[in-house]
Amino acid sequence: MVFKSAREQAKLIADGEILSEELVNAHLDQIERVNPAVNAMVTMGAESALKQACEADMARMAGEEMGPLYGLPIAVKDLQNTKGILTTHGSPIYAENIPTSDALIVERVKKAGAIVIGKSNTPEFGAGSQTFNAVFGSTKNPYDVSKTCGGSSGGAGVALATGMTTIATGSDLGGSLRNPAAWSNVVGIRPSPGRVPAVGSDLGWSTLSTDGPMGRTVDDVALQLSVMAGDDPRSPLSLRESATGYAGSLERDFKGVRIAWSKDLGGRPIDAENSRVTEAQKHVFEDLGLIVEDDEPDLSSTDEIFQVLRAYSFAIKHEGHLRDHPELLKETVRWNAEQGLKQSAIDVAHAEELRTRLWEQLLLFFDKYEFLALPVTSVPPFSIDLEYPTDINGVEPETYLDWMWPCYTISVTGLPAMSVPAGFTKDGLPVGLQLVGRPRDEMGLLQLASAFEGETNFYKQRPGVVG
Amino acid sequence: MVFKSAREQAKLIADGEILSEELVNAHLDQIERVNPAVNAMVTMGAESALKQACEADMARMAGEEMGPLYGLPIAVKDLQNTKGILTTHGSPIYAENIPTSDALIVERVKKAGAIVIGKSNTPEFGAGSQTFNAVFGSTKNPYDVSKTCGGSSGGAGVALATGMTTIATGSDLGGSLRNPAAWSNVVGIRPSPGRVPAVGSDLGWSTLSTDGPMGRTVDDVALQLSVMAGDDPRSPLSLRESATGYAGSLERDFKGVRIAWSKDLGGRPIDAENSRVTEAQKHVFEDLGLIVEDDEPDLSSTDEIFQVLRAYSFAIKHEGHLRDHPELLKETVRWNAEQGLKQSAIDVAHAEELRTRLWEQLLLFFDKYEFLALPVTSVPPFSIDLEYPTDINGVEPETYLDWMWPCYTISVTGLPAMSVPAGFTKDGLPVGLQLVGRPRDEMGLLQLASAFEGETNFYKQRPGVVG
Repeated sequence: MVFKSAREQAKLIADGEILSEELVNAHLDQIERVNPAVNAMVTMGAESALKQACEADMARMAGEEMGPLYGLPIAVKDLQNTKGILTTHGSPIYAENIPTSDALIVERVKKAGAIVIGKSNTPEFGAGSQTFNAVFGSTKNPYDVSKTCGGSSGGAGVALATGMTTIATGSDLGGSLRNPAAWSNVVGIRPSPGRVPAVGSDLGWSTLSTDGPMGRTVDDVALQLSVMAGDDPRSPLSLRESATGYAGSLERDFKGVRIAWSKDLGGRPIDAENSRVTEAQKHVFEDLGLIVEDDEPDLSSTDEIFQVLRAYSFAIKHEGHLRDHPELLKETVRWNAEQGLKQSAIDVAHAEELRTRLWEQLLLFFDKYEFLALPVTSVPPFSIDLEYPTDINGVEPETYLDWMWPCYTISVTGLPAMSVPAGFTKDGLPVGLQLVGRPRDEMGLLQLASAFEGETNFYKQRPGVVG
Repeated sequence: MVFKSAREQAKLIADGEILSEELVNAHLDQIERVNPAVNAMVTMGAESALKQACEADMARMAGEEMGPLYGLPIAVKDLQNTKGILTTHGSPIYAENIPTSDALIVERVKKAGAIVIGKSNTPEFGAGSQTFNAVFGSTKNPYDVSKTCGGSSGGAGVALATGMTTIATGSDLGGSLRNPAAWSNVVGIRPSPGRVPAVGSDLGWSTLSTDGPMGRTVDDVALQLSVMAGDDPRSPLSLRESATGYAGSLERDFKGVRIAWSKDLGGRPIDAENSRVTEAQKHVFEDLGLIVEDDEPDLSSTDEIFQVLRAYSFAIKHEGHLRDHPELLKETVRWNAEQGLKQSAIDVAHAEELRTRLWEQLLLFFDKYEFLALPVTSVPPFSIDLEYPTDINGVEPETYLDWMWPCYTISVTGLPAMSVPAGFTKDGLPVGLQLVGRPRDEMGLLQLASAFEGETNFYKQRPGVVG
């Protein structure tokens, strides 16, 4: 039951074949059974979830209208506020923080009928792509518990892979919806800025960070996006287009569609085995009728752009924490925020100017190609004992972020991007393929990912930990 | 002929009652006659305009499809690139700059059939709301040539008021589409960010500066906006909604619609005579059936936001000029850019955070009211010999920008705003009323301005200088 698709589970409830209460209980059982081995779900709302499930069942029987996620349990990332449920941001500073309102993405999935079953783990303030923190400890990779699951939506990826939830929220600044999806063999989409409006953000006009869905399949992600996306006037950059189309058919004939294929964005450091796995998928796009060309846009300015804009956002977010609780911040967060506080305004302006020129140049590239494919990660899942990899195919990274180049180079472009399961290393560790679409074209991206998934079906390979 | 509305002129051409060549010639004659007194048009493209008019006439006779501005001469602000026509930005640095391509707004009006007749004057780099520069000198107020016409779209406002053009482009960072409209008794609209996409900007994700139209009447402005607005993928923040609706009817019943009326945003310095003129118009909204309440949002954070973000944008724009040609920059531009270069990244982040909180708070205000009305300027047109007023009802401003508070406080909100003619001081100087609408609701704003115009008809009062 817990491994059925979101649409199947929703249909069983809608048809009265199972109760939402039963579905919630099945997931609670799975969490009880599997979570101790991986530590993905860190705060549970079992009692209130069961109560809501009962109410949902009664309302359904009374003929209430049902949203697309009606009665489905959902895991919410612990960076996102949940009314009445502990939300720690992975930080000891917020170890007892119980929000009085829901984040927009939570509001929306609830409105679509989903029931918050608990919170999924994240690194402290989502910083770095290794899910560990001083409040709850590390989340382990379900395919090898001695390895990390990535992050920052690491708990979400693992909870999905292990059937502890079928739908999950995430967020992505430098890869947090894509890297953990890749490493748990599930799917994540980083939507365009404004697609899931950034209500309540520190910087309402910033386009670097975004919320979004994760799921085991492309369709599960598309279904969630159809309710998470859509206009909200509380965000000034909110996109107004209707999102309901994402819930429709993703079928499409890709004959003659052009896709650029990049092994390593022109010689960036990448693990050989990681590369081997993704390269082996190139033919699938040819089989689908696409015209696949080895090509890549010039993303050389993205490192400066990302470092500056990330530090800038860390400075505003952690200025108060640095002042009031410096001892409660992990070193990488402290470093990143201090780096931001040292920056001048013109550093930020230069980065923004570079980003503007990059956009113009990317448009020309995406005139030629509808899609770009590249790896999601530069290495396979690394040891759970490391904060970040210290060796990428012989290259030693300078900062805790460098190894995330396949994701952050895309984040700053403002283009929508997805991670889809692309196979396994010889050690059985999952590897993801990243697909990037044209401006605001999540639909094209979902269609392509769906076609790829239909040919490959890697998502069916369950992690050993589920037994 | 030259004082007919844009739609009337376009219809005469479409019906074959006049030739575009005749219309262009009529405007060239008016420029020859009136411009020496006011110095609004600073670079002429007479020869090429006449050639294009001839071509347009022939194409029309051959049955070519005609855009809404077909055959109409247009004045382009000298900050906006015109292919093959001198574009100085009001700066000696660009005194001989001939662009090889058109700005987007120019591309679009040309595509709609307009013919660039010449360039309208602007302060150096559009800085400050007094239209003077070292290349072309000052543009004079057509209602009193000893006074300034405001700025920075000062040449545009004067050219419209004096019948030298019927349509005109402008741009607005801190009031440049509104203040010169007010002081030349014409209409200007500052659209929402992204409505006229910021293609080719230094900072593509910035929302402070925007291009837009000016005209003698609300309808002339709406007609222009219908072709200037609309999606362009080259700008990442471009709004996708169709703009053709602006060219339709602006009629609307305002019975019961709520508008907040603010005399001075809670006690900011304002000239008494300026106030008297705008206050006298309050009853018009009551006559139209609106519910008018004395109220205003808390815009106290907008001064810091504007100063920081303006200096930030000046720093990136003038960093190179400061290095290479400091002696060719006027003092206020140098000061403003240096101020920006001294700022830290966290100063900018604080301003952006304040702006985000402001947006949230304004949404609550605009839940209660559909519109806000306030003055456009804090003083009537001041002496042409001053760079900026040194006394606002007894208050001495600290910077060259302070007196612009009625406009810049609105710029940072991201809301669309208009200036409409609202009467004259006892000395016969024009005064504008500023109308502010809900997020992205240019249509509501145009409708209200049109209704106000229909009741008041101030635009019919021509300046003395036209004889």
